[in-house]
Amino acid sequence: MPEKLSGNMLIAQGGGPTAVINSSLVGAVKQAKKYSNIKNIYGSLNGVNGIINENIVDLSGETDGNLDRISRAPASALLSTRDKADEEYCEKIFKVLKAHNIRFFFYIGGNDSSDTLRIVKEFETKEDYKIITVHIPKTVDNDLVLNDHTPGYPSAARFVAEAFVGLDLDNRSLPGVYIAVVMGRHAGFLTAASALARRYTDDGPHLIYLPERKFSEDNFVKDVQENYNRYGRCVIAVSEGIQDESGRLIAAKLTKNIEKDAHGNIQLSGSGSLADALSEHIKDNTDIGRVRSDTFGYLQRSFRTCVSKVDRKEAFEVGRKAVYYAADKNQSGSVTINRVGDYSVEYKLVELEKVAGKTKVMPDEFINDAGNNITEKFVKYLRPMLGADFVSGAARIRAEKIVKKL
Amino acid sequence: MPEKLSGNMLIAQGGGPTAVINSSLVGAVKQAKKYSNIKNIYGSLNGVNGIINENIVDLSGETDGNLDRISRAPASALLSTRDKADEEYCEKIFKVLKAHNIRFFFYIGGNDSSDTLRIVKEFETKEDYKIITVHIPKTVDNDLVLNDHTPGYPSAARFVAEAFVGLDLDNRSLPGVYIAVVMGRHAGFLTAASALARRYTDDGPHLIYLPERKFSEDNFVKDVQENYNRYGRCVIAVSEGIQDESGRLIAAKLTKNIEKDAHGNIQLSGSGSLADALSEHIKDNTDIGRVRSDTFGYLQRSFRTCVSKVDRKEAFEVGRKAVYYAADKNQSGSVTINRVGDYSVEYKLVELEKVAGKTKVMPDEFINDAGNNITEKFVKYLRPMLGADFVSGAARIRAEKIVKKL
Repeated sequence: MPEKLSGNMLIAQGGGPTAVINSSLVGAVKQAKKYSNIKNIYGSLNGVNGIINENIVDLSGETDGNLDRISRAPASALLSTRDKADEEYCEKIFKVLKAHNIRFFFYIGGNDSSDTLRIVKEFETKEDYKIITVHIPKTVDNDLVLNDHTPGYPSAARFVAEAFVGLDLDNRSLPGVYIAVVMGRHAGFLTAASALARRYTDDGPHLIYLPERKFSEDNFVKDVQENYNRYGRCVIAVSEGIQDESGRLIAAKLTKNIEKDAHGNIQLSGSGSLADALSEHIKDNTDIGRVRSDTFGYLQRSFRTCVSKVDRKEAFEVGRKAVYYAADKNQSGSVTINRVGDYSVEYKLVELEKVAGKTKVMPDEFINDAGNNITEKFVKYLRPMLGADFVSGAARIRAEKIVKKL
Repeated sequence: MPEKLSGNMLIAQGGGPTAVINSSLVGAVKQAKKYSNIKNIYGSLNGVNGIINENIVDLSGETDGNLDRISRAPASALLSTRDKADEEYCEKIFKVLKAHNIRFFFYIGGNDSSDTLRIVKEFETKEDYKIITVHIPKTVDNDLVLNDHTPGYPSAARFVAEAFVGLDLDNRSLPGVYIAVVMGRHAGFLTAASALARRYTDDGPHLIYLPERKFSEDNFVKDVQENYNRYGRCVIAVSEGIQDESGRLIAAKLTKNIEKDAHGNIQLSGSGSLADALSEHIKDNTDIGRVRSDTFGYLQRSFRTCVSKVDRKEAFEVGRKAVYYAADKNQSGSVTINRVGDYSVEYKLVELEKVAGKTKVMPDEFINDAGNNITEKFVKYLRPMLGADFVSGAARIRAEKIVKKL
């Protein structure tokens, strides 16, 4: 048996934060303390950006008490970055890792993070320095391939479902059309979670529009009018990433100032323009008086009072597993979550390139034929992830009407 | 001692729902079951609108189990209305009440509801029919006079505080300018609640703009730039009701399509335009790259996972007290909450006309001199209402930076 690699470890958090990304951080740090071949436990501030600038902290001395508190805090305790690391960037990363005798490098993030680790790992031969790189999955979009689901998604999904419970009851109290725009550029998983709000058959959301299906403004008006006629109201969940027949983002079509991020993507979150535009479209094309809209924005990935316990536990576990594969097995790769029971999961390590740069979207079996709602299969898929304490909908008054006298 | 009034009771819910308005409903219904002079317990659907249309249900048979579940559901279980009842409308109400032998009429709502009860009560002599009308306070805006605070406000305030905990950590992870628009047309209490998110001195929100102080777009840019220079980021809470020097709503100034509600008020909620406009203003007048904004919208009054236990209990109590005053004391009026300890409250009945049509705003001692933040006195005022389980901010990593090698 070859000798185990020995040296320091470095962990970093990248991309959009989630409500449980710190559980993965703490899971990894606590697990690392168990291995004698892991010396110092370092954390990089602001993701890969902190590596190339050597903004690195020594986490070895953090007390268990403080680690536990941090594991319950939303967002990235080590701070994050939107930097996308290319070859040149990754070479800089490698030189810093080598200079600090870092042999185990963990990056908590989406598929970009997995790609960064893949490129960094490739400098091993050139630099004649052995290194283990392990990707710890995270994304509220739930769009990583080879994963049943991804840490961060169940809590964001629970926020969306909890939000729609309240918003649907609010709309029932004061009826009209209500539209809420949910995060998810390419994958509709988070928007679809709104369906878990329903208890009674007339509960909203009555319509759900996903980026996996083309969005037609005309059909939208028809759908809304039809539901409004049936229920006297209509509650709608819309993904920020909906596109028209030609693949053009509805948000881009209807918004005047288009901003692009460092990855060249059109900025979708942090603006209410899509919701407002869809509202205007309904006002302009129907006689419905009360039309309101909201955009959930950054709330859905940072809200701390409806974190799924299942999600928190799994986030912790993928952090622990990553360190186990690295320190005990000397294996690089991406930790994945696989569903093996109803409900139970197993963790497996897959090659970094199998996850890097790929995007998973909602399978067809989760979307209804009309493309404006989800199926019961999706409900069955999501429900256990929200935690046993999640309850759809709310109780209603059962009393019967009295006889009119006037 | 005069004989106690005896007959049926009717209860209704009006205006914007809250997360605890059903606690008041259930408090009143449960209390009513204790009085032999209250016969049937009726509920009107959609507030006063259900009265004039005789859409009335008999709540007498609701089980305690279902009532308990309803008390925990957000929004108005009896549904609501935006109808503003004038003299003619109130006369219709009176005739329906009389036809159904209703002697006790309870309306859960804001100052408009108190005014409705005042007008209805005035038809007693003309119609030669004795009636007791009691107003049960409710409003997320916290703007009822003669009340230390109003049921619904603490839970909405807790939502805002919880939201800013997560949003500030999110912004700390990926720094920039972040603006969130909070409900509150005339009173800044709900926007001010964002301050309770802070634990560390550099925690956001760094700026808080209230309708009680004139908003200057130039000072806004200066304030944001100053905080951005100091912290490398800036998180801002803005009330939807902010106005310029001439008293014009900033939302109206910057929005093209202005919608007015049944009360002639400009529609503020249900649109992200103010947040987007303030974002654009910062982008246009500074060199700051990342500027994002959200509008909390209807989430803040309907979210069920961060309801304040103090608020839920007080909402229940004001419902009970209203029935006590009506059935036991045969007194009409508005139930008010008075703070008598730190923290303890007492309930008193005041005349309807003292609450009707009046609006309370933030006292000067709660706002800083610059008009862009709140004072410690406000924190002391709000904290106990959020419940003992509310925690400001979140733990941080304490680890120190390692020495750079490259």
